[in-house]
Amino acid sequence: MKQLTHVDKKGNARMVDVSDKASTLREAVAQGTVLMKKETFRLIQINNIEKGDVLGVARIAGIMAAKKTAAIIPMCHPLNITSVQVDCRPKTKTHCIVIEARVKIAGQTGVEMEALTAVAAAALTIYDMCKAVDREMTITDIMLMKKSGGKSGTFKR
Amino acid sequence: MKQLTHVDKKGNARMVDVSDKASTLREAVAQGTVLMKKETFRLIQINNIEKGDVLGVARIAGIMAAKKTAAIIPMCHPLNITSVQVDCRPKTKTHCIVIEARVKIAGQTGVEMEALTAVAAAALTIYDMCKAVDREMTITDIMLMKKSGGKSGTFKR
Amino acid sequence: MKQLTHVDKKGNARMVDVSDKASTLREAVAQGTVLMKKETFRLIQINNIEKGDVLGVARIAGIMAAKKTAAIIPMCHPLNITSVQVDCRPKTKTHCIVIEARVKIAGQTGVEMEALTAVAAAALTIYDMCKAVDREMTITDIMLMKKSGGKSGTFKR
Amino acid sequence: MKQLTHVDKKGNARMVDVSDKASTLREAVAQGTVLMKKETFRLIQINNIEKGDVLGVARIAGIMAAKKTAAIIPMCHPLNITSVQVDCRPKTKTHCIVIEARVKIAGQTGVEMEALTAVAAAALTIYDMCKAVDREMTITDIMLMKKSGGKSGTFKR
Amino acid sequence: MKQLTHVDKKGNARMVDVSDKASTLREAVAQGTVLMKKETFRLIQINNIEKGDVLGVARIAGIMAAKKTAAIIPMCHPLNITSVQVDCRPKTKTHCIVIEARVKIAGQTGVEMEALTAVAAAALTIYDMCKAVDREMTITDIMLMKKSGGKSGTFKR
Amino acid sequence: MKQLTHVDKKGNARMVDVSDKASTLREAVAQGTVLMKKETFRLIQINNIEKGDVLGVARIAGIMAAKKTAAIIPMCHPLNITSVQVDCRPKTKTHCIVIEARVKIAGQTGVEMEALTAVAAAALTIYDMCKAVDREMTITDIMLMKKSGGKSGTFKR
Repeated sequence: MKQLTHVDKKGNARMVDVSDKASTLREAVAQGTVLMKKETFRLIQINNIEKGDVLGVARIAGIMAAKKTAAIIPMCHPLNITSVQVDCRPKTKTHCIVIEARVKIAGQTGVEMEALTAVAAAALTIYDMCKAVDREMTITDIMLMKKSGGKSGTFKR
Repeated sequence: MKQLTHVDKKGNARMVDVSDKASTLREAVAQGTVLMKKETFRLIQINNIEKGDVLGVARIAGIMAAKKTAAIIPMCHPLNITSVQVDCRPKTKTHCIVIEARVKIAGQTGVEMEALTAVAAAALTIYDMCKAVDREMTITDIMLMKKSGGKSGTFKR
Repeated sequence: MKQLTHVDKKGNARMVDVSDKASTLREAVAQGTVLMKKETFRLIQINNIEKGDVLGVARIAGIMAAKKTAAIIPMCHPLNITSVQVDCRPKTKTHCIVIEARVKIAGQTGVEMEALTAVAAAALTIYDMCKAVDREMTITDIMLMKKSGGKSGTFKR
Repeated sequence: MKQLTHVDKKGNARMVDVSDKASTLREAVAQGTVLMKKETFRLIQINNIEKGDVLGVARIAGIMAAKKTAAIIPMCHPLNITSVQVDCRPKTKTHCIVIEARVKIAGQTGVEMEALTAVAAAALTIYDMCKAVDREMTITDIMLMKKSGGKSGTFKR
Repeated sequence: MKQLTHVDKKGNARMVDVSDKASTLREAVAQGTVLMKKETFRLIQINNIEKGDVLGVARIAGIMAAKKTAAIIPMCHPLNITSVQVDCRPKTKTHCIVIEARVKIAGQTGVEMEALTAVAAAALTIYDMCKAVDREMTITDIMLMKKSGGKSGTFKR
Repeated sequence: MKQLTHVDKKGNARMVDVSDKASTLREAVAQGTVLMKKETFRLIQINNIEKGDVLGVARIAGIMAAKKTAAIIPMCHPLNITSVQVDCRPKTKTHCIVIEARVKIAGQTGVEMEALTAVAAAALTIYDMCKAVDREMTITDIMLMKKSGGKSGTFKR
């Protein structure tokens, strides 16, 4: 029967013990989407064309948040990630921004949370920079797309 | 015509100048949902009934993240929020968890980002604590439900 | 009947809502003691006489920790403290170090936790810097000595 | 003759150079106690029985503080700890809470400070959540109980 | 006779007590320069023309560092700055980048350190992003250009 | 032809992927100078002679900032540095303070940024502690003096 790994037998939260795990190359890819009004999307596109900073700030927020994951998510292990990439892809037809984060490490535990946290921070940053023109933006479909490395092997959504 | 407030005329990111804004009582409520498999939902419910920590950790992660908002979202002002509440509501029919965060301040700028960041952190924490049994959980519909106070007045979704 | 203010009716943790509290001048003084072997005490004294850094580092660690209180203690409000002083007093007879921290603010809530956190951090720093010669040092009697300001008035131990 | 390792010949503070140390499995256990009034102890017990959060928040504060040790204690090395456990044990007879933290790592230096910092943060959190009903709580007997791994071998108090 | 305000009579560091200071509108402007090889300057210019991120990342690093000043500079007061602007100006003739930061607050103490810290962080970020092509870049002439507000009045370099 | 490593083909900022790099012993030495008025220099000297804290606080600020480098410089990898030393050398003839930082690691990437960040933070701290007597201090000539280890080999300025 399946069990939650982050709680002990009494149900108390704990950081999972990874002391004995082998250090292997691990990678995780996560995705999320920011839905918005057509007009908001147009303003971001104009800003982007004019070398503006909106998506650039979101990208950097995502990279920096990946490094802060263990300080934001209580049971996450502190990790020395070796690579983070964050892409913000404007989708003209559906006037939304799809964010993808890819994180790597050579370590004892995976980097799914780092990739997901990067996506969430980038999405929140887009909201922040556009909220004065569109309070109804919605952050949606934050999910793990792929992970590889480690005992549990490769996962693909 | 509408304009992005967080970029200057050259399109460069900036922290909006709120030096001259009046300090008023402001409040924001945000929401988000974690979708999961029935089995995962059942494990969280059992943990909850047995005084387990899963939703408790998520709640605390949300409260602590609200306080870190200005360190996560690049253009956010550092703020001394005066109240944060985070609720995690299990929805049995749709086997999902709805997270709601409510943040208050007496200050020169609103706390929408603090409420949204609290929701995102709580949702990511639920993902983290259950990911070993369900990698396909999805964080969805993070959005502002209400804000009040400040020059732009009350917003209700 | 007395009640815990940091938990709601369901027993869930919350940051106490201080939105409506008046901003007044508040002060808190806390104390703590590091017990150690005679020999360890002697080494700190020599270091101190030679303009060494042990107690200086402890003092600075205390001041910096006071500023981080809201990031360390989950339900603490973020505060802009206006003054911190940390003293480390070597007590020759009992070969221990007594640490005292005094914190001030003009704000909506008290600074007891800031003073106590400063004392704890300074004490842990003394432990850290001397642990190679004395693993049995003990940090003891961390307590609030005095607080003033705010609705609950003055407290003196 | 014994010497302080964290100060150089001039008495100046330094981070001890562990570049050449072997990476081995290390563990540390620390303990501390929060003394309080009978009535305060009773309120925590009731909260605990009702699935309340007081000891849960303390446990999480301890785990998160262990990860922040290098940011709180100036000369501590940044470390990727692989396991943290924090227990809060109510002692009915003496109406106090005994906190125990156990930290592990596969690394070049020990985790004593991480275990001690976790205990201190958990103790301060209990103080914070109960201070409105009992300002005279005292944090006492924070000490290292055990350490193993590394060149200096096993220590047991 | 002039005296250092950040040390007490015993020479011990302290956070200056600003509890009794009036809250006024304050502003500070700081500047700094990154000297580099012609070839490095050309690469930054090309990156800039192609909507690249080098100066954008530096700008954001500066804004975020301004918010972290009290965590980096031990005796700085935590402050809720209300505005930060960072400009990176490429100087073609001398192939260097001049960074200017402007910070505002309505508070009890000035924001000189916030402006200087923003400049330093932006300069270090430019170094980081170009160091693979030019290890000999030099950060120079970090200085306060202007401050206004507060008891000491206006300063202009 | 030389290329910026921290931007991808589209010019977007990225954290350089070091996943495949070997872990080797690396060291970096950086330097910087704080220019000041004769009178300011004299006050620091007196403080220093009287076992004062000015240069001690600067040294500690430098050590702590080295540990925070990845949180300050957006594209820096989080690293577990194994040694930091910061020296502040008063130069009587030119009444300036020369700061030198030396950082070591056994890791997959170098520690130049950690050494430079330590120097910048120490210099800013000297400015902070003396700014009430001399607003015109200037931080200058922050530069890498030496680095060794890693594929690119040894660099000496």
